[in-house]
Amino acid sequence: MKAVRVHSYGKRPSIDDVPEPTITGPLDVIVKVGAAGLCRTDLHIIEGQWAEKSGVQLPYVIGHENAGWVQEVGSAVTNVAPGDAVILHPLVTCGLCRACRAGDDVHCENNKFPGIDTDGGMAELLLTSARSVVKLADGLEPAAVAALADAGLTAYHAVRKAVPLLYPGQTCVVIGAGGLGHIGIQCLVAMTAAKVVVIDPNEKARELATELGAHEVLASGDDLADSANVVLDFVGEQGAESLGLTMTRRAGSYYVIGYGGAVNIPTIDLISTERNIIGNLVGSYNDLDELMTLAALGKVTLHTRQYPLAAVNEAMDDLEAGRLQGRGILVP
Amino acid sequence: MKAVRVHSYGKRPSIDDVPEPTITGPLDVIVKVGAAGLCRTDLHIIEGQWAEKSGVQLPYVIGHENAGWVQEVGSAVTNVAPGDAVILHPLVTCGLCRACRAGDDVHCENNKFPGIDTDGGMAELLLTSARSVVKLADGLEPAAVAALADAGLTAYHAVRKAVPLLYPGQTCVVIGAGGLGHIGIQCLVAMTAAKVVVIDPNEKARELATELGAHEVLASGDDLADSANVVLDFVGEQGAESLGLTMTRRAGSYYVIGYGGAVNIPTIDLISTERNIIGNLVGSYNDLDELMTLAALGKVTLHTRQYPLAAVNEAMDDLEAGRLQGRGILVP
Amino acid sequence: MKAVRVHSYGKRPSIDDVPEPTITGPLDVIVKVGAAGLCRTDLHIIEGQWAEKSGVQLPYVIGHENAGWVQEVGSAVTNVAPGDAVILHPLVTCGLCRACRAGDDVHCENNKFPGIDTDGGMAELLLTSARSVVKLADGLEPAAVAALADAGLTAYHAVRKAVPLLYPGQTCVVIGAGGLGHIGIQCLVAMTAAKVVVIDPNEKARELATELGAHEVLASGDDLADSANVVLDFVGEQGAESLGLTMTRRAGSYYVIGYGGAVNIPTIDLISTERNIIGNLVGSYNDLDELMTLAALGKVTLHTRQYPLAAVNEAMDDLEAGRLQGRGILVP
Amino acid sequence: MKAVRVHSYGKRPSIDDVPEPTITGPLDVIVKVGAAGLCRTDLHIIEGQWAEKSGVQLPYVIGHENAGWVQEVGSAVTNVAPGDAVILHPLVTCGLCRACRAGDDVHCENNKFPGIDTDGGMAELLLTSARSVVKLADGLEPAAVAALADAGLTAYHAVRKAVPLLYPGQTCVVIGAGGLGHIGIQCLVAMTAAKVVVIDPNEKARELATELGAHEVLASGDDLADSANVVLDFVGEQGAESLGLTMTRRAGSYYVIGYGGAVNIPTIDLISTERNIIGNLVGSYNDLDELMTLAALGKVTLHTRQYPLAAVNEAMDDLEAGRLQGRGILVP
Repeated sequence: MKAVRVHSYGKRPSIDDVPEPTITGPLDVIVKVGAAGLCRTDLHIIEGQWAEKSGVQLPYVIGHENAGWVQEVGSAVTNVAPGDAVILHPLVTCGLCRACRAGDDVHCENNKFPGIDTDGGMAELLLTSARSVVKLADGLEPAAVAALADAGLTAYHAVRKAVPLLYPGQTCVVIGAGGLGHIGIQCLVAMTAAKVVVIDPNEKARELATELGAHEVLASGDDLADSANVVLDFVGEQGAESLGLTMTRRAGSYYVIGYGGAVNIPTIDLISTERNIIGNLVGSYNDLDELMTLAALGKVTLHTRQYPLAAVNEAMDDLEAGRLQGRGILVP
Repeated sequence: MKAVRVHSYGKRPSIDDVPEPTITGPLDVIVKVGAAGLCRTDLHIIEGQWAEKSGVQLPYVIGHENAGWVQEVGSAVTNVAPGDAVILHPLVTCGLCRACRAGDDVHCENNKFPGIDTDGGMAELLLTSARSVVKLADGLEPAAVAALADAGLTAYHAVRKAVPLLYPGQTCVVIGAGGLGHIGIQCLVAMTAAKVVVIDPNEKARELATELGAHEVLASGDDLADSANVVLDFVGEQGAESLGLTMTRRAGSYYVIGYGGAVNIPTIDLISTERNIIGNLVGSYNDLDELMTLAALGKVTLHTRQYPLAAVNEAMDDLEAGRLQGRGILVP
Repeated sequence: MKAVRVHSYGKRPSIDDVPEPTITGPLDVIVKVGAAGLCRTDLHIIEGQWAEKSGVQLPYVIGHENAGWVQEVGSAVTNVAPGDAVILHPLVTCGLCRACRAGDDVHCENNKFPGIDTDGGMAELLLTSARSVVKLADGLEPAAVAALADAGLTAYHAVRKAVPLLYPGQTCVVIGAGGLGHIGIQCLVAMTAAKVVVIDPNEKARELATELGAHEVLASGDDLADSANVVLDFVGEQGAESLGLTMTRRAGSYYVIGYGGAVNIPTIDLISTERNIIGNLVGSYNDLDELMTLAALGKVTLHTRQYPLAAVNEAMDDLEAGRLQGRGILVP
Repeated sequence: MKAVRVHSYGKRPSIDDVPEPTITGPLDVIVKVGAAGLCRTDLHIIEGQWAEKSGVQLPYVIGHENAGWVQEVGSAVTNVAPGDAVILHPLVTCGLCRACRAGDDVHCENNKFPGIDTDGGMAELLLTSARSVVKLADGLEPAAVAALADAGLTAYHAVRKAVPLLYPGQTCVVIGAGGLGHIGIQCLVAMTAAKVVVIDPNEKARELATELGAHEVLASGDDLADSANVVLDFVGEQGAESLGLTMTRRAGSYYVIGYGGAVNIPTIDLISTERNIIGNLVGSYNDLDELMTLAALGKVTLHTRQYPLAAVNEAMDDLEAGRLQGRGILVP
């Protein structure tokens, strides 16, 4: 089958012919990929930012936000059957460690992360597990939701963690209305009555934020010091980190979601205001299931642009150059 | 009356004769000071670290952890009467802002902090408010508990915030078993069944930690990378900040309580492990009331050394030189 | 001044001339009443249902959901000034007990409840406290929001407690779309993405529920056994209590808000399904403040019918006979 | 193999020769039973109280609190190996439904409950699943901990749910210091600093409660109206239900754990005090893992009496007659 593989860090991936995956375990599931989202993390992988953390052996297939149709299942799979439309939780988890048993899939002690540390979904077929497939409601198409598998899930997870802080009268500042941010805005509007303020230097992103229901949309946060009870930082680099903390009020929380930069803050500034810095990583299986509920209700819709699988590098060019509004989707 | 006043930053305070405070508001309370705790923050004040943040006008009376007996009360005070033994919540709060109405006294929008931004308790008498006095149970003496008013309250507050994370099987690392830390250890042992690991380079502090029930006591945390679900950092400077984050496991939380240093961490390291950095500032009135319950039960006892008020500078010398085991207490 | 007073249980109140209230304490506030809501509890008071619980001495002025303008303030009042438009938290609280210090005003150990156990707001003037007045945002009129003071607050409080349970994909059944229920529906739609199912035998109430955004509206809950994760019962009598528990799914919660009936359930039925029965009583000062935010945003609007103060008994007739859509409001 | 089977309701079980269980699924685990606890629920099963709820086909093997050693495992089992000492979570769960994915094993939509609705552990061998086995720490013997599998887990789960309510200064009343209650008391002492008051008419049970650290021990709760922030009712019948609610203070919670009786309360009494009634059912896999931590630390020890498997009816006689202090254990 065709697959997008990284052969060496610093170089763009190529479209290769590779063997199809096979079922070997009782909970294995093979999915015919309907769509694979393109993520800034794919660029970071190619740059080598994840090389040490993932320890993956090159070459391998990237693609970590995937949806499609079940093609074949292992002997003990009871929750899906061939033909079912599904979206894939990005991790393959063991189900037996304490984190899995607590519903905290992302911290599974034995996880695999297809597209990060094992073969992913920018291919015709993908091997995953019964524990990673969420059935799509009637009317939801894989290509329409694929990018929710990781970008959407990450945004949803951070928003859901922040919901208890965002009661009426509270203010949430969103930094970045791009691939993740524009989903985060929709989740905030759907699940809270808080004031949503969006900061993005890109005019088209600001227009989108306004359409999606943001209450205030700005090109810069320079006038927003101490204004937010919660800051959701979907950028996490190039100054967003320090801006994010500056905008966070006393007793407020700064959620780091994007990355690339660094947090630098004197401990006296953290304690004298009692502010928190909250890390965020993807989301749980149930988070993804809940996000699919929002999608089925029409409360979260993705702004995407489709490319054929073979055009992966063109898509990456567009993403790198800031020409990609919303999220890029590769369709095999 | 006699009072310990700071006249200029960088110079030690002097013992002055100053006018006695008077009742002017209906909720005012004047307390005959029984004891005032000496805190590392008093040294930081004198160094000028708080000058900009507090905006206090010199000279003024320091002393922000106080206990004593009610001497006189305003016309609307119903909760205490002259003669009552009390410990003082360190802030004087308005009771009418949203934070006060939520029980979050420390973030009162109109607070005064005697000893920090207005006259404090290293004096014979102290002006406070009905909202700041916690009556002591029979058997609790002001001199025995004064240092719980701020050091103890701060330690208790951080521990109480961490309790939901510290179920059986979880590990809490405590950095520093000094004035705050030795109270934090007792609170952890009283309120959780978690494993308590204490790190302190000082041998006497380690002996005390062991006596107080710590399960493991070490001079250094160098071998504890990724070992703690919760780190309570009572130091917050001189490398404790980076050590604290290093010891914090995936999905764990690093509580900053001490200060002086800085947190520096790449955003990728926060998100790839989903760790949190939690600021902590003093505690609420109800926190102090709960801590007094622990004190009355004998579950929290202070290790103190008493000095007469006039010996304030000798006490500061001992604190600075590391000669002060537990907490220094000034008795007028 | 004119005031609506109950003289004996079982008999309707009369409009009396009574002395005006005066400021005696430093935190007292006298409010010129702009509007007083009429509540089913007023009927229950007259029936004597609250006689023993309130211990009030007859005659007294009823009216426990009030809004108006500040007329005069005590010497220590800093949060409002004469002329301010305000809505009144229904209780007058001490601010010094543990419950008050925790933001849990309703459980104040020294509370007074004007209109229940002391003179209320169906009058030209009302005596309350600085702790009970929430300033109205520009554009909010006392007559438009008065009924939110108690009916609205009670509905909001119950919904807010349930919000953490009502993530996407969960179902909330609302029993009763009358005075409280129609506010509860709006709060649910504003603060959650849960499915809202409303049950009301009254056709006009069902039409209103549909307009307000309920996702499913039914005359009866007979087909809804085990269907709801949360049931909000705004009726609490005449079979709603047993229906409410029947509709509650495993691990779900039944919120009792209305009253008059009784809960009867074998303990085996509670434990074998691990269901909860949650009592609800009014709400906190901060709850009311948050509800005013929703009102100012236009997310909660009251369906009311105004009557002059002198027409109180006509309004009660309409309420008793089920002729009153939404909430009755008395305007002095 | 030998097994204790119920043949008809209303009649005591017999010791039968039955076929050994076999591995058929990839996650199956066969355990050589080391000990099976005897529970009041076994008596209720025989009385037929569970007949309709469980729908089990007679005859079947009872015994729902089991520990032993792994004898054989299915092809996909990775967390245990033959020879491992284990305690069994009472349910066999699917791992794929929403409840399982949330760590809420007890509400698994596809669960089996060996000993309740399928063959249980009063036998030489028991069929369970990889998802149900918790490895025992060195030093913990199956016979010493078996009764923690259900009785202990149920007590632990209820206490853990109540921990956030039981901060210093709060009071927890425990009704019943028998098989479950005496474990609940130990969990309370290990995990909270709350005041623990125990009520039991049996003098030996009261002596045990005192030994285990209860702060106050009484034969009756008649003088305790409105005294408890939390009531843990391990009896749930014969008047405990109404007593439990009577002892629960405003804003407090009554936890139903034992069963047999019924809760009857006017809705006005629930709402005017804002009290909660909380159902409790067994506990999660992680709860059991945490309880094993407490057991390994020596913070929870079981008071048991061992009987050979063949003496099951003698053990039941002792339980029914109140002659069984602590918990009865059957050893094959």
